[in-house]
Amino acid sequence: MARIVQKFGGTSVGDVERIKNVALKVKAEVDRGNEVAVVLSAMAGETNRLVDLVGQMGKLYDAREYDVVVATGEQVTVGLLALALQDLGISARSWLGWQIPVQTDDVHGKARIENIDAAELDRRMKLGEVPVVAGFQGLGEKNRITTLGRGGSDTSAVALAAALGADRCDIYTDVDGVYTSDPRIVTKARKLDKITYEEMLEMASLGAKVLQTRAVEMAMKYGQRLQVLSSFEDKPGTLVVDEDEIVEQEIVSGIAYSRDEAKITLVRVSDKPGVAAAIFGPLADANVNVDMIVQNESVGGNATDLTFTVARDDLNRAVATIEKLNTVIGYAKLLSDPNVVKISVVGVGMRSHAGVAQRMFAALAEKGINIQVISTSEIKVSVLIDEQYTELALRALHTAYGLDAA
Amino acid sequence: MARIVQKFGGTSVGDVERIKNVALKVKAEVDRGNEVAVVLSAMAGETNRLVDLVGQMGKLYDAREYDVVVATGEQVTVGLLALALQDLGISARSWLGWQIPVQTDDVHGKARIENIDAAELDRRMKLGEVPVVAGFQGLGEKNRITTLGRGGSDTSAVALAAALGADRCDIYTDVDGVYTSDPRIVTKARKLDKITYEEMLEMASLGAKVLQTRAVEMAMKYGQRLQVLSSFEDKPGTLVVDEDEIVEQEIVSGIAYSRDEAKITLVRVSDKPGVAAAIFGPLADANVNVDMIVQNESVGGNATDLTFTVARDDLNRAVATIEKLNTVIGYAKLLSDPNVVKISVVGVGMRSHAGVAQRMFAALAEKGINIQVISTSEIKVSVLIDEQYTELALRALHTAYGLDAA
Repeated sequence: MARIVQKFGGTSVGDVERIKNVALKVKAEVDRGNEVAVVLSAMAGETNRLVDLVGQMGKLYDAREYDVVVATGEQVTVGLLALALQDLGISARSWLGWQIPVQTDDVHGKARIENIDAAELDRRMKLGEVPVVAGFQGLGEKNRITTLGRGGSDTSAVALAAALGADRCDIYTDVDGVYTSDPRIVTKARKLDKITYEEMLEMASLGAKVLQTRAVEMAMKYGQRLQVLSSFEDKPGTLVVDEDEIVEQEIVSGIAYSRDEAKITLVRVSDKPGVAAAIFGPLADANVNVDMIVQNESVGGNATDLTFTVARDDLNRAVATIEKLNTVIGYAKLLSDPNVVKISVVGVGMRSHAGVAQRMFAALAEKGINIQVISTSEIKVSVLIDEQYTELALRALHTAYGLDAA
Repeated sequence: MARIVQKFGGTSVGDVERIKNVALKVKAEVDRGNEVAVVLSAMAGETNRLVDLVGQMGKLYDAREYDVVVATGEQVTVGLLALALQDLGISARSWLGWQIPVQTDDVHGKARIENIDAAELDRRMKLGEVPVVAGFQGLGEKNRITTLGRGGSDTSAVALAAALGADRCDIYTDVDGVYTSDPRIVTKARKLDKITYEEMLEMASLGAKVLQTRAVEMAMKYGQRLQVLSSFEDKPGTLVVDEDEIVEQEIVSGIAYSRDEAKITLVRVSDKPGVAAAIFGPLADANVNVDMIVQNESVGGNATDLTFTVARDDLNRAVATIEKLNTVIGYAKLLSDPNVVKISVVGVGMRSHAGVAQRMFAALAEKGINIQVISTSEIKVSVLIDEQYTELALRALHTAYGLDAA
């Protein structure tokens, strides 16, 4: 007997028939003799509909009321699934964030889970009841509903799994696992049987939108075994586990990409101490996240060219912030370009292998693709290139690292 | 300064523009220097949509999960209105049943309010904040969401008004008040300025679907002044008040009707003690409400004809229940007829005036309308007639009692 938390996303509970299909998936796990808890998202499209209603209410924005409205999406699906499970003869009841409670901080709209009191759920699961828990929502310190931010149901599931001491947290979604690259672009991409938390974190934050980053971080922190699998097919997915569990580690596990990038270059910034702080401090204050940064010597001495990337949605805000600073920092020209993509080679194996980055640069050069910015970490190498080469670069790198399916 | 509870029904909050219109109605009351609390229904059609989803989940029906799902409708509207009010510069926040709490019994799907802890709302209203309260929902004894049954938001509003010691509870709806009869049928119907609780109760339960019966009962119990008025027009509605407040009382205040009736006649039931109990006991056990009852001597001695009415939806269940009893009670024939209507003349003034019923019988006779069953109370006379004469009867009676608009 194992204890399993199953999480189903919005497309998996998108309509009445799909919710009944989810009930069958839960029943299959119960029939295997396992203790099961379920975490659900809202029906696909419902959260967007609710967010849109909130947006139409006026210029002012009270995140506490936003949370009241959008949390209803999950409340509907947990009630419906509890009924569908009961109809299959399974003892089940719905749980809302405030009922458990899933205690969070008071940052409405993107709250963080602080504690889950799982004692009552634990007791009921031992008696054979299946708790059906609303993902994405919690209870703030002032007895008001909070939500965790978009995609937060993955985090709810992992946190609940950790609190319940679950053997596995299964994230059911509309893909059947984590691939070596985006299979819509790289037809030779392969599904991975296992991936480490660290790699998954890089894949998730780099744009392979399978799992929410915070959920992977939390799983890593608690050593919670995760599985990503399809709710529409009946086969194993990809296990996200500790590095120790993977015996034969590949050097590179996957090639990820992110189109959510924009590049800013400040030409001939004066090259003196404190300039970087004068630029990135105000950007941080304006809530702009800066990702890659490179600084080159400029042609005309005493000055330098500074290039960095921001989220594409933040580009206008970033440019406006910097233009206000021109008298302070002094630059010759500001160039911005939203038509870039970040391509990343990810693998824990590269820690112990040299030449991984070099192979990347060679493969791109061979296709005539110019690298604009490079950044590296212990387990990844990322480059920024012109967006029009996205597909070409992904396929070339996938082949270069020997990832192509036979 | 007065303290007012404003309740807006589903059509009044049916879309974004209408919710903003509601915010203006609330602001107008605040601008008059009044303390205001608001109670809302779900957007028109939303509760039906949710009930339909629940119905599709299977044969089993857990009213606790039904409540979880359908309570979301009001949760959405209170969040949205709080935002719309804030956008107008009014301090406002939403309150869900479990947050106040609105304590109810555990009869899920049609719970009764047991207590409202209004201390915190009272404190905030004194500071100028407008509580926006989800109608229709409460918190049961086991920390689960309950709902009050369809139309329960009126009851929520009256209960909240009583708990807050409000000077008036304004029920905004899609009609502009209580009329002497249904204005869609009786074009000469007049809007009443005032009506007593007792009359309103008869009008409401007899089919003038302006106010929920339980809400009127509760208002009467607590002496809570009510006003029914339109959310789409800016003019006074109808006040529902104590009899003492109405100086010049008409003998008859209105002519109501209900199509939700069906007639059952048992021909030649043996005329002996205990027969009525043998029939109406099992009907009560089958949850069938019996309304009008008449018993006539049958032609062939020692037996009697028994006629009574039930809700039209309950007719099949009532007939099935009685047919099972035939060996016990013994009747010659069971006749049933769903094509009947109940017409009622209502007025507290008839307590002190004779001849009210007679005028009704004469007016109907003059139009050649046969009366099938009669029942009377202190303040009303009801007759059951063939449904095809509904409009004719209503207009004739409206004229006969001098209610026609000049």
